[in-house]
Amino acid sequence: MKIGIIGSGALGLYYGAMLQKSGQDIHFLMRRDYEAVRQSGLHVYSVNGNFHLSEVACYRSPKDIGPVDTVIVGLKTFSNQHLTELVRPLLGTRTAILTLQNGLGNEELLAKAFGRERILGGVAFLCTNRGEPGTVQHLGEGKIHLGEFCGGLSARSRKLAEIFQKAGVPCEAVSDLRRARWEKLAWNIPFNGLSALIQKDVTGLLDHPPSKRLIRMLMLEVISGANAQPLEQRIDAKKFSEQLIAFTENMDPYRPSMMIDRLEGRPLELEAIYAIPIEQAEAAGVQMPRVEMLYSLLSAGE
Amino acid sequence: MKIGIIGSGALGLYYGAMLQKSGQDIHFLMRRDYEAVRQSGLHVYSVNGNFHLSEVACYRSPKDIGPVDTVIVGLKTFSNQHLTELVRPLLGTRTAILTLQNGLGNEELLAKAFGRERILGGVAFLCTNRGEPGTVQHLGEGKIHLGEFCGGLSARSRKLAEIFQKAGVPCEAVSDLRRARWEKLAWNIPFNGLSALIQKDVTGLLDHPPSKRLIRMLMLEVISGANAQPLEQRIDAKKFSEQLIAFTENMDPYRPSMMIDRLEGRPLELEAIYAIPIEQAEAAGVQMPRVEMLYSLLSAGE
Repeated sequence: MKIGIIGSGALGLYYGAMLQKSGQDIHFLMRRDYEAVRQSGLHVYSVNGNFHLSEVACYRSPKDIGPVDTVIVGLKTFSNQHLTELVRPLLGTRTAILTLQNGLGNEELLAKAFGRERILGGVAFLCTNRGEPGTVQHLGEGKIHLGEFCGGLSARSRKLAEIFQKAGVPCEAVSDLRRARWEKLAWNIPFNGLSALIQKDVTGLLDHPPSKRLIRMLMLEVISGANAQPLEQRIDAKKFSEQLIAFTENMDPYRPSMMIDRLEGRPLELEAIYAIPIEQAEAAGVQMPRVEMLYSLLSAGE
Repeated sequence: MKIGIIGSGALGLYYGAMLQKSGQDIHFLMRRDYEAVRQSGLHVYSVNGNFHLSEVACYRSPKDIGPVDTVIVGLKTFSNQHLTELVRPLLGTRTAILTLQNGLGNEELLAKAFGRERILGGVAFLCTNRGEPGTVQHLGEGKIHLGEFCGGLSARSRKLAEIFQKAGVPCEAVSDLRRARWEKLAWNIPFNGLSALIQKDVTGLLDHPPSKRLIRMLMLEVISGANAQPLEQRIDAKKFSEQLIAFTENMDPYRPSMMIDRLEGRPLELEAIYAIPIEQAEAAGVQMPRVEMLYSLLSAGE
């Protein structure tokens, strides 16, 4: 399958490399890593074993990639103003677009520009960081839940899940993408925001009883916002929040991307991870006061 | 009046200097500024006019001060474990103790050690910062509300207020010290904590609509905590919070002491300004969820 990767940050590089290693025909749109990858290929340092791709099809302009079967979007959402112009040159008549970006609003943006039927979304539970140009570090996890923006389990989403699985990436096609997005928010909202605000990794946050308590309260607010949406099945608040906390306690100390974005002076993904979820919860009659406070505090530092 | 100053930080130095200039007999317990003041006296750089005291009675040990008429306490509350041992050598049979420290719990600590009848408390709306050793910067404001720990308007508290007034410090004796303490908390809890957390001065916080809204919500929580206490008269939440915000908007950009403490790696006054007020509000049946969240975030950074 010919796949274009738009947004070759840590996530795009890692999944793209895994897919290419399994035999897929991968084309990366690159900015920061372009020169390094042209010269020496792409190095993946992974907890599951390092590998090196010496021949990597990388491009400076999406026009040079041309039409593909599937576009995978890994762009940071704070660059979403460029998203549609970057994706457009890759579209053939039947091209599908899978966005693995964080938060809410990304499928809607793509659907508005290119039609709802093209769009799939996915959430990635992935711990990666960018390394030196031409390298990516995979620190753990990596599972993807993906589904149709229009809902339901399609042949297309099952096929994509299979392609990821064959590449060694745990992947599940789900019928309720909205639920998957909110489940991921229950992790992103506390861990990304708190780590950016107080510059502690996830282990540091969980080791301090007051911030662990706060993480739990934030998760419960997000899940109550989720359960006010039209989900196929409600999220079990207590069970799911405890699962997320246990999952994170089993991780090695990890610095979420938002912590690194703040540290390195980049903007934060506040719109997708905070503003739109708060808006959607409110529209469904649910207040998330602690989430709002966290959003205020993060936005004050921008 | 012979007055001993315990805790010669910005507040202790400024009020001590003003009192000495007006003719009171002032004795400073000093640490950081001792050598500089011994050599070149104390320089006050004030919006109301600079002045210099060439002869300053300063001491390294409270034993060398001996009994005084009044002890004024300006110690940072995170050093309260040393408070009683520092005050004890200054006590004669009738010595009064006035604590101008931040937050709650200071009068109680002194009362437990030395008897309730000795204790007065005061809240200072004062913008000062320490400068180079031997100097203090008075950036604005300075009003004190003081009162008896046991309540009521005593001759002693009126007398003390008069002494401050004669020294050019606006000062009012109040019958309800508890109310004055909570009024001050309605300022300290939002502005100290938020400025320490996101390293913005009060003007920066108020210029950003989301943090201004958060400041107002924090104030309203604190006032609801206050009004659950046995006050002589309730605080008008709406009116008082708007007054505090207007008062702060009229100030020049000011970095609260907690912001500077965090910046310079010192501990924060979290017990007096957050933990005890949260405890007292809870004991009176009032939750302050945003104040609790701010406390958690600040404590996670300690």
